Amino acid sequence: MGTYPYSEPETEGLLREFAMAKGFNAWLNFELLAAGQGQIEIRQEVNDDLLQHHGFVHGGVVGALADTACSWAAATLAGDVVTSSYTLQLLAPAIPPYLRVRACVIKKTRSTASVEAKVYCLGENEAERLVANALASIAILSS
Amino acid sequence: MGTYPYSEPETEGLLREFAMAKGFNAWLNFELLAAGQGQIEIRQEVNDDLLQHHGFVHGGVVGALADTACSWAAATLAGDVVTSSYTLQLLAPAIPPYLRVRACVIKKTRSTASVEAKVYCLGENEAERLVANALASIAILSS
Amino acid sequence: MGTYPYSEPETEGLLREFAMAKGFNAWLNFELLAAGQGQIEIRQEVNDDLLQHHGFVHGGVVGALADTACSWAAATLAGDVVTSSYTLQLLAPAIPPYLRVRACVIKKTRSTASVEAKVYCLGENEAERLVANALASIAILSS
Amino acid sequence: MGTYPYSEPETEGLLREFAMAKGFNAWLNFELLAAGQGQIEIRQEVNDDLLQHHGFVHGGVVGALADTACSWAAATLAGDVVTSSYTLQLLAPAIPPYLRVRACVIKKTRSTASVEAKVYCLGENEAERLVANALASIAILSS
Repeated sequence: MGTYPYSEPETEGLLREFAMAKGFNAWLNFELLAAGQGQIEIRQEVNDDLLQHHGFVHGGVVGALADTACSWAAATLAGDVVTSSYTLQLLAPAIPPYLRVRACVIKKTRSTASVEAKVYCLGENEAERLVANALASIAILSS
Repeated sequence: MGTYPYSEPETEGLLREFAMAKGFNAWLNFELLAAGQGQIEIRQEVNDDLLQHHGFVHGGVVGALADTACSWAAATLAGDVVTSSYTLQLLAPAIPPYLRVRACVIKKTRSTASVEAKVYCLGENEAERLVANALASIAILSS
Repeated sequence: MGTYPYSEPETEGLLREFAMAKGFNAWLNFELLAAGQGQIEIRQEVNDDLLQHHGFVHGGVVGALADTACSWAAATLAGDVVTSSYTLQLLAPAIPPYLRVRACVIKKTRSTASVEAKVYCLGENEAERLVANALASIAILSS
Repeated sequence: MGTYPYSEPETEGLLREFAMAKGFNAWLNFELLAAGQGQIEIRQEVNDDLLQHHGFVHGGVVGALADTACSWAAATLAGDVVTSSYTLQLLAPAIPPYLRVRACVIKKTRSTASVEAKVYCLGENEAERLVANALASIAILSS
């Protein structure tokens, strides 16, 4: 992509093949923009099935996006991982149809990674508006 | 249902009409079992679109179920609400196809409700296995 | 005590000897009321050094009490433990001088315990008022 | 201080006068290094009373430091505040005697601020080692 200095094409290929092509992630329409070195960026085009009754993106979708970004960011450093816990703050209504998330590993120990993620919705000209802030503990299975 | 002493049929009807019939909640196949007096129970039959690459229920689905249960539990006491934040612990793989969640308001102030939720998957004979534990702060909009 | 069916005198003795008699715990004046089978109850008489500038018990004291209760509750089942993370909701002002906390292990895996704690301040006649709700992930070191 | 571009001397003076000089904060020996524009940095020299039974800084002290930094960071933007909830990840043993915390407001709405804090212990030559990561929701009272 040129704009992601942390990008590792091989890692991105593995994530696209094994984690994004199936089940919920495929259905949620997650598009991996970049992955590598403990960082990740995902874009999502949200269809009407993912809204709540006020017309905003459902908090569960925002949470799934944040959780996925945190676990994949850890996976770029640690291979097989699983989310232990995360805290999600919902800060503003997530206006469809475009979400973007950036996640970054803050510290990796032998068994756990601390990962932060921020979720944005996009207005005109791709102007970002922060809608959620997340902090996750990701368990490293291969430890 | 008879087995839910907190059940309030009118509240349940409102939730079914306004919150469950549309968008993500309808797609997730949430079935409200009981609601009232700050408590709620929801059952979900999970189809294959909601799994992750190991065949378990996607953590995002578990999170959406917990978040939804917490906000609706608060809604039974406080009307219009929105989730401010929640912490989700993922404690065991969620084996499809059946999930169940119970949520309970622990304290309600003028502006906020503290709500706990526990998510179970169901084995044979409806034996429950705890897969997630959540603690949410729900903002009360009508305050 | 008679009122704590989960009480295990040997466990309580170990906690009093190794964890309560020294450093911060001793200074905070934690008094163990009961411990055993994944449950614990602690009472604290709060002196003026532990208040904040409005005269309530400092949130850091409430957090320390909740964190300590969670880790000790896990220790009754798992031996040597350390807190990985916790979420604390501060729900009401903690009025001095008496706090009480009850913690309970919800699930224990090989490596982690999920523990809940509730902190109360005490009014006249020991009437309890909930001031904080906590959810902790405790790492089991001996796993 | 020269090294803190966000420093606002008047804000720092108010925090020192009203929040740091009394009770628990005074006892914990918090030293405000800089405050302003939603950011804060605090240093703490930890005496032996604040250790746990392994000789590390007690998690409750680390939590109090993180919580205090988050609420004060919000106070630089919003005046009178109170912590609603926070999640604390304890990532490594906090080796005495020096801790340092930096907190930053990520988003402020009318009623709430989302604040992140990182706590470090200091080795020789003030080399920092990350020991805790926190995410807080701070309620704005003057809203």
